[in-house]
Amino acid sequence: MRKPTHKTKILQEGLRVVHERGYSASSVRDIIQAAGVPQGSFTNHFATKEAFGLEILELFYEPIQKLMAETLLNDALPPLKRLRMWAETGVNSLNQNNQWNGCLLGNFGAEANAEIDTIQARLAEIFSEQQRNIAYCLRAAVKARELPAKTKCGDLAVFIHASFEGSLLLAKAQRSLVPTERFKKVLFSTLLSPSA
Amino acid sequence: MRKPTHKTKILQEGLRVVHERGYSASSVRDIIQAAGVPQGSFTNHFATKEAFGLEILELFYEPIQKLMAETLLNDALPPLKRLRMWAETGVNSLNQNNQWNGCLLGNFGAEANAEIDTIQARLAEIFSEQQRNIAYCLRAAVKARELPAKTKCGDLAVFIHASFEGSLLLAKAQRSLVPTERFKKVLFSTLLSPSA
Repeated sequence: MRKPTHKTKILQEGLRVVHERGYSASSVRDIIQAAGVPQGSFTNHFATKEAFGLEILELFYEPIQKLMAETLLNDALPPLKRLRMWAETGVNSLNQNNQWNGCLLGNFGAEANAEIDTIQARLAEIFSEQQRNIAYCLRAAVKARELPAKTKCGDLAVFIHASFEGSLLLAKAQRSLVPTERFKKVLFSTLLSPSA
Repeated sequence: MRKPTHKTKILQEGLRVVHERGYSASSVRDIIQAAGVPQGSFTNHFATKEAFGLEILELFYEPIQKLMAETLLNDALPPLKRLRMWAETGVNSLNQNNQWNGCLLGNFGAEANAEIDTIQARLAEIFSEQQRNIAYCLRAAVKARELPAKTKCGDLAVFIHASFEGSLLLAKAQRSLVPTERFKKVLFSTLLSPSA
């Protein structure tokens, strides 16, 4: 295995630090210290803290894109099963082991302010893409007669996405898995139940 | 009208600043400058920034408690009507006039980390109280036969609360009212429709 570069260390450890403490609460010094690299290497690799923030956003989003490709967008599987796999894997991969860090996307969304414009713009794109992918899967479910023909897939997709992010946020704030458990339970017993 | 005290100015302007920029991103200097009071008056009134954070949390929560008393807990009105008033007034009072600040409770929840323990603890209490109040109203709706007898009110209350906060978070991040509009629409056309 090749030794990780300073840039890789900064991104990996920096992602962990920002996910734990929040973007504004994490100083460049915190990130450098966690990565165990010399002070100068941050500025060597990132023009600004915002540029670093954008890269960790992509790093966090990569496995989510992979998950969406394997579930929401995977026409080889029954649509509601795909949706369930996406929802369960998504919420179950966060807030684990008493690490109440929530979802980095949601955290960035809540923190977003005028001072981190490029991060906010990219985040808005990511959220739109997630909503499009959920809607794609819902439309497949309607086509497969797993959901009623009258289902408003675009509206429902945004609602499900909000519930998903909201449950991760409440789980973090309440330090409890109850909100994410209720999200999965109510979603599949009501909104996405075959008889809905 | 009595002239506002320094403490009142710090709380009012500080709440605005923190709601706009986030808690960690707002320095005591930012807050003092916005309030137009001398540097020393912050430390005169607040032992720590965290103590100030707790007070603005209460200040923000006050009208929400009032709203819940007038809607969710108001037995003089039909239950689903109360729920609709709560949901609509709640989301419509935030993210207005192109100020994409989200909900201060959700923002604190997403930012919360080990360094702001007392704020996090109070926030968890507030979220539990909101969920209890939603559940109270849902149980009243079941009793009034506005919802089916089989409705799992406790589970559904947490789900609705997550969707509510999630939609405010997405609206903020996407700088669009679509997520909160979809929240209201889907909530009342599916989960809380009389035929559900």
